[in-house]
Amino acid sequence: MDYAEQLNKVKALLKESRYYDGLLNFFVWDQWQGLPAQGQAYRQQMQGYFSGKAAELYLRDEARRLAQYFAAFDPARLESDLERAIVRVYLRHYNQAARIPVEKQVELAELTAQAGQVWRAAFEKSDYNLFRPYLERVFRLRIEMAGLQDANRHPLDVMADGADEGIDTAQVQRLFAQLKAGLRTLLRRIQSAGVEIDNSCLAGPFKKEDLRALAVYLVEATGYDATRGGYGEVIHPFTAMLGPADARITTNYGTFAFAIFAALHEAGHAMYGYRSSPEVAEAGLWGGNHGGFHEAQSRFYENLVGKSRPFWEFFYPELQKRLPAFQAVDLDGFYRAINKVQPSFKRVLADELTYSLHPIIRFEIEKDIIEGKVTFDALPAVWNDKYEEALGIRPPDDRAGVLQDVHWSMGLVGYFQSYALGNLYGGQLRQAMLRAEPDVYAEIGRGNFGPLNRWLTENVHQHGAMYAPAEMIRRAAGEDLKADYFLAYLAEKYRDIYHLG
Amino acid sequence: MDYAEQLNKVKALLKESRYYDGLLNFFVWDQWQGLPAQGQAYRQQMQGYFSGKAAELYLRDEARRLAQYFAAFDPARLESDLERAIVRVYLRHYNQAARIPVEKQVELAELTAQAGQVWRAAFEKSDYNLFRPYLERVFRLRIEMAGLQDANRHPLDVMADGADEGIDTAQVQRLFAQLKAGLRTLLRRIQSAGVEIDNSCLAGPFKKEDLRALAVYLVEATGYDATRGGYGEVIHPFTAMLGPADARITTNYGTFAFAIFAALHEAGHAMYGYRSSPEVAEAGLWGGNHGGFHEAQSRFYENLVGKSRPFWEFFYPELQKRLPAFQAVDLDGFYRAINKVQPSFKRVLADELTYSLHPIIRFEIEKDIIEGKVTFDALPAVWNDKYEEALGIRPPDDRAGVLQDVHWSMGLVGYFQSYALGNLYGGQLRQAMLRAEPDVYAEIGRGNFGPLNRWLTENVHQHGAMYAPAEMIRRAAGEDLKADYFLAYLAEKYRDIYHLG
Repeated sequence: MDYAEQLNKVKALLKESRYYDGLLNFFVWDQWQGLPAQGQAYRQQMQGYFSGKAAELYLRDEARRLAQYFAAFDPARLESDLERAIVRVYLRHYNQAARIPVEKQVELAELTAQAGQVWRAAFEKSDYNLFRPYLERVFRLRIEMAGLQDANRHPLDVMADGADEGIDTAQVQRLFAQLKAGLRTLLRRIQSAGVEIDNSCLAGPFKKEDLRALAVYLVEATGYDATRGGYGEVIHPFTAMLGPADARITTNYGTFAFAIFAALHEAGHAMYGYRSSPEVAEAGLWGGNHGGFHEAQSRFYENLVGKSRPFWEFFYPELQKRLPAFQAVDLDGFYRAINKVQPSFKRVLADELTYSLHPIIRFEIEKDIIEGKVTFDALPAVWNDKYEEALGIRPPDDRAGVLQDVHWSMGLVGYFQSYALGNLYGGQLRQAMLRAEPDVYAEIGRGNFGPLNRWLTENVHQHGAMYAPAEMIRRAAGEDLKADYFLAYLAEKYRDIYHLG
Repeated sequence: MDYAEQLNKVKALLKESRYYDGLLNFFVWDQWQGLPAQGQAYRQQMQGYFSGKAAELYLRDEARRLAQYFAAFDPARLESDLERAIVRVYLRHYNQAARIPVEKQVELAELTAQAGQVWRAAFEKSDYNLFRPYLERVFRLRIEMAGLQDANRHPLDVMADGADEGIDTAQVQRLFAQLKAGLRTLLRRIQSAGVEIDNSCLAGPFKKEDLRALAVYLVEATGYDATRGGYGEVIHPFTAMLGPADARITTNYGTFAFAIFAALHEAGHAMYGYRSSPEVAEAGLWGGNHGGFHEAQSRFYENLVGKSRPFWEFFYPELQKRLPAFQAVDLDGFYRAINKVQPSFKRVLADELTYSLHPIIRFEIEKDIIEGKVTFDALPAVWNDKYEEALGIRPPDDRAGVLQDVHWSMGLVGYFQSYALGNLYGGQLRQAMLRAEPDVYAEIGRGNFGPLNRWLTENVHQHGAMYAPAEMIRRAAGEDLKADYFLAYLAEKYRDIYHLG
């Protein structure tokens, strides 16, 4: 094959590029686990230097030449799915990295560094006007960068595709219209059911050491292999992917629910991260697809497994042994407590039902801002109106409203929809899994996570980034992404919990 | 000045080079603090990649051009000590990095990776013949590399200068002749004094958490600033210099003495590491001089301070409170226990007196091997003879003898003398400090480490690598390196402890 030599060069470049991915994640990990206060200034310099080196990889003449060669190359002539994936991922990286001038990337980095500080101050004072000029600049710059990347597409399409490979605004809107309607219907039925759930048992206080030991026990019993990762403690939990067999998870021990479900969530990210097959890892495609598809795996372990009744049928006696306060609560009471539906202002603290409404609202607002339909003047009121309309609660101030989340200050515009898409992918994968393995929850109830982990590994995780999300869901679930399965799952779950008719 | 532009290029290159230094130290830190078992293979790839990038810096045409420019440039024409230091350090880096072909560096890396494993197996079986072929290859390759670096000098001169800038074999031999004679005389006097010291109080057992808390308390009270570092636990203690204000220390909690004195030792490295002045740090000269001069700072805090009577006059009551087993021992008994002289086979466990004899023996053996006066056949017996002659004890087997140390398997030939030179620099700096600040130990006895840290910072630490060791000791102590001060210090210390006449 005459393309073999070119493909090897692409593989070598991807491999280098992944070393930098690992390195930059390593810096994030250390930011929380080791970096001392006074070491931060120099670390920023180091991080800037190595980020620059990573970007330079795609600015070499050879990188451009390879991109041109394979952009004009018929994928059908490539020999395998793996070869096609290498080319696909390479072109995606190249287009993201090479089309935005380095100065713009630096501008964004500098702007978001400032915006982050200003957002924090504005949040503390609950003062939107402080943050507003920075928010405007972030939107303007991100829209400009989307135009540089592809001037022929709607900026939100470019952004959405950047977060979730292959997705576009129209598809998100279609899915969200159905999802929003379904969630609101279900929410109304729950609210009118007149069932009060007491979740005071979750309030604690619990000792941090006990929560830590419990979190480690649960994630490892569920399938997380600490010889391919490790544990850290942070404010905002994340998973650091340092290599194809090094996915370290973090959690926050502030509350019982946060400690346990964030740990399960991050373990889901990590297992998807380190389960790439050797061939996939060797080709530089380890770690999985970004965005909503990754979120699907984390929310799978957090919710579809970790908030299921069989999960706690098995683990609740152990929990009661470790945290004796729960001896006063029976399994049913605990199961209902962790699944209580309660509209709130913060996505990260939301229950499984109302959670998706937060990203949907954000996506609608972002679209309207980008299209000039909502001004930055009107934004706080629009935000509050949307919350009132969707969730039935109105933020009392900017702090609980438009300022409550950090993403925009980090430059993450056109990203939020991923969080809801993750639930849809997850619901659909769950349904496919149950079709193939009807006993998977029965086995979980016996503490056997083999069928669960086997099915996810074989059908999803081992492939890493080999198939883009749309292709992956077709392969694993047999059809395109739909909202129906997630909605059906929720309806069934809450019918039981809230005694719905 | 017409050289200003060239000098700026040198500074920029040094700066890049220091980022890689920080990064490679970061990998060493993580190797012990975070890296999971299965993450090691990929980490090795990453480490190889970034080591290669670091080496490439000095292989650019521009690096060669700058080296040629400044090699031919009269240092007197440079404007300041700082400028001269930048040029000096650059040329030193350049000559070390650019004269050895990359293949040779790779060969050494691969050889030592194997040699390390074989050494471990040989050590466990106490079988020198297993390790011998690798040891021969290590010596042969290191001698070849020394020749590539400078064919006109004795290989050991090249190696010694690589470890301790500016030193040569003749100077080491002069210093060691005096040191060895002085140590042996003192050792004989101690051994014939008929004083038995009981150090059984150090045996413990102690709880690891208690030792950890005590080590942290002591190093911080002594001057270590954890906002410019952090703590880790390892088998072989080291300090990881990740940046000019990020020097993390490690220790091993296996025994009381190891835990406490290794922590003080590493804190000495770390304080020297992070105390470079802003100008020195900015110029890329942070972290200090390598080799014996760095060892001087660590052994200063470990021994000259940490094993002094005033140090424990202040801290012993706290120690007794934290570790109640010591309530049965008075201060004098404890002070004598930590200073008991007892010839042994392992440098890292040696007392302050016999310690230096280990590096002296190693240096003599290395010189004889390099000059062909000792064959690899004869080596184990030569080793044992030397130990018997210098320390009066004969290793019973290879494990306690020629195999007891890891350095050679790591390719560290011509390095060991640094460990004894560190004691000489330290003794001389101590004497200069006492001339300037006669009350420094009285203040330590009151828990005031201000005068100690101030003198070391002002006279030594703030300068980082700005002055090579020979220049640094002249500036700080007023004369060239001599063995007299360290020997006089030991004689005075042990006169008291062993009631010598």
